[in-house]
Amino acid sequence: MVEPATDTIAATKLVPLLKDELDIVIPTIRNLDFLEMWRPFFEPYHLIIVQDGDPSKIIKVPDGFDYELYNRNDINRILGPKASCISFKDSACRCFGYMVSKKKYIFTVDDDCFVAKDPSGKAINALEQHIKNILSPSTPFFFNTLYDPYREGADFVRGYPFSLREGAPTAVSHGLWLNIPDYDAPTQLVKPLERNTRYVDAVLTIPKGTLFPMCGMNLCFDRDLIGPAMYFGLMGDGQPIGRYDDMWAGWCTKVICDHLGLGVKTGLPYIYHSKASNPFVNLKKEYKGIFWQEEIIPFFQAATLPKDCTSVQKCYIELSKQVKEKLGKVDPYFDKLADAMVTWIEAWDELNPAGAPAKVSNGKA
Amino acid sequence: MVEPATDTIAATKLVPLLKDELDIVIPTIRNLDFLEMWRPFFEPYHLIIVQDGDPSKIIKVPDGFDYELYNRNDINRILGPKASCISFKDSACRCFGYMVSKKKYIFTVDDDCFVAKDPSGKAINALEQHIKNILSPSTPFFFNTLYDPYREGADFVRGYPFSLREGAPTAVSHGLWLNIPDYDAPTQLVKPLERNTRYVDAVLTIPKGTLFPMCGMNLCFDRDLIGPAMYFGLMGDGQPIGRYDDMWAGWCTKVICDHLGLGVKTGLPYIYHSKASNPFVNLKKEYKGIFWQEEIIPFFQAATLPKDCTSVQKCYIELSKQVKEKLGKVDPYFDKLADAMVTWIEAWDELNPAGAPAKVSNGKA
Repeated sequence: MVEPATDTIAATKLVPLLKDELDIVIPTIRNLDFLEMWRPFFEPYHLIIVQDGDPSKIIKVPDGFDYELYNRNDINRILGPKASCISFKDSACRCFGYMVSKKKYIFTVDDDCFVAKDPSGKAINALEQHIKNILSPSTPFFFNTLYDPYREGADFVRGYPFSLREGAPTAVSHGLWLNIPDYDAPTQLVKPLERNTRYVDAVLTIPKGTLFPMCGMNLCFDRDLIGPAMYFGLMGDGQPIGRYDDMWAGWCTKVICDHLGLGVKTGLPYIYHSKASNPFVNLKKEYKGIFWQEEIIPFFQAATLPKDCTSVQKCYIELSKQVKEKLGKVDPYFDKLADAMVTWIEAWDELNPAGAPAKVSNGKA
Repeated sequence: MVEPATDTIAATKLVPLLKDELDIVIPTIRNLDFLEMWRPFFEPYHLIIVQDGDPSKIIKVPDGFDYELYNRNDINRILGPKASCISFKDSACRCFGYMVSKKKYIFTVDDDCFVAKDPSGKAINALEQHIKNILSPSTPFFFNTLYDPYREGADFVRGYPFSLREGAPTAVSHGLWLNIPDYDAPTQLVKPLERNTRYVDAVLTIPKGTLFPMCGMNLCFDRDLIGPAMYFGLMGDGQPIGRYDDMWAGWCTKVICDHLGLGVKTGLPYIYHSKASNPFVNLKKEYKGIFWQEEIIPFFQAATLPKDCTSVQKCYIELSKQVKEKLGKVDPYFDKLADAMVTWIEAWDELNPAGAPAKVSNGKA
């Protein structure tokens, strides 16, 4: 049986890494009591809280945290008509936080995620591991059988080309979950009691050309390198699906990372995922996605971007055209999604004018 | 500090898996005392020992093991002029054992590999784990973030296409090494004291389209599915390189597995690798390979096989033509190697006539 850590203070570092260069983005509909457990790890950082649902509700944030909070009214005010690209009543709204951040790095975490313990019983500083992952290169062009070659005690094995040992810049670090695994509704229904208790002590690069199911629960990325591709799509209120927000972002991101020569890592760190969502509700949200992903994934597997797509924005606009052309036939939803992808990029560029320096946040909103 | 297990008897299974369907192939130049430690795991199986070097030397095999042993005279006698494709004074000679086996599965292990311990201190039955790997499907077409979805306590995560959940047949199980890692000579020279102490509790499929450095130290494969691609090339005596035998087999095998829709797994099981080979000797063997692999790997990454290559043999012959055409320019060695690849297939087919049933071995030679 795995249990969350209770002593997190002992595991704190004295000097937090990237303190002024990273924002923590949290989508929520409730008071953020879960932050108490993360306090030793998160308190030095700035939080961007994206409040979903009723904007008149007051979300309590524990004392001592440096944060800004946006509700739906804020999103509508800041983006105007372009706010249509930000989902409502779905944690997909978190991507608004990516857009308003001015930092180089984003860590996003769900409010039902707690601090996990490693096999020695020590509280895992998930953020610190993500930062390690993202600051060291990736190896997307050839597989290293001893996993991350840049990790202490590891290296490239015999037969690994020397020309590839500098690696590629890491754009994404995808962390995993102990306790409740990230299963779809059918698997939740079939295996209601399954818990993930296996701590796999590895970080690895997902090879170029390979897609993966990216979960938004415990995710870090380099905004400068890949931010505009981290759009979580149209989900929830008024949309025919939910729970594909992070998947959509993952497929788009991976195709663009592959095109631009950027790396995506998965593995450590683990968080402790406390609560399984309701599988019946999930099935309702997911069932169209379960059909559609059978066409979406071959689409992304076959997608190629022209050479003149040299920025994430250009790649993303090109991808939106291909979505419209190829997936529009699957369902009119994808026409709407393709338009929203364009709106997202317009809104991103409006809030992040080219050449604007990444500013250090001034504290609470 | 990792140490090998000492109590292996306690870890034995009562009924050994695939007892009559698997041969253990061991290349050696010395007495096989290392088998004592493996006795509880290997004794139920048939061994094929390929004696390298001076055929007049007597190799002692501990009592109680069921084995056949081939030295260079045997290889020359059995293959006649085709024996030229089997390396001499190099562990690449092991692939002769793959050819004379009549079993469906092969496990090959080096004679400086001992039984490793898992983090709980239990002796690892490497063969049992390989058999589990090879009898369960692979997932080469999409990455599962919780690693092997067929393992107990794991499954496919949200966003994994249902149409791909049957997986693909597993052709290869590549195991890893605790203690001495499989480094090339330059890395050995730079990090003489590095030991692998990290036990990563995972098995994963190497995605389609991704090459990897396959090590022959601790390797299992399905002879029926991929055997003829497991040629370990021309190494050692009279050849310009060594230590690229398993790499060569790995690159060819992976390209062919990708073409035929077969899976390659890596990760568990670990063996305990006891002795680092001499880095100065290794550098001499490797240095041409270090240059050449910079051209070999792009060659294999770009290699495609025509649709009418529907058997491993056809794929391998086609690959030999491409080697001659594309790598022949790099060095005349590859012309010779391409010819040897053809000879290997001819010899394979001679010893393994089409439609011949996999026979159960009758015991000692």
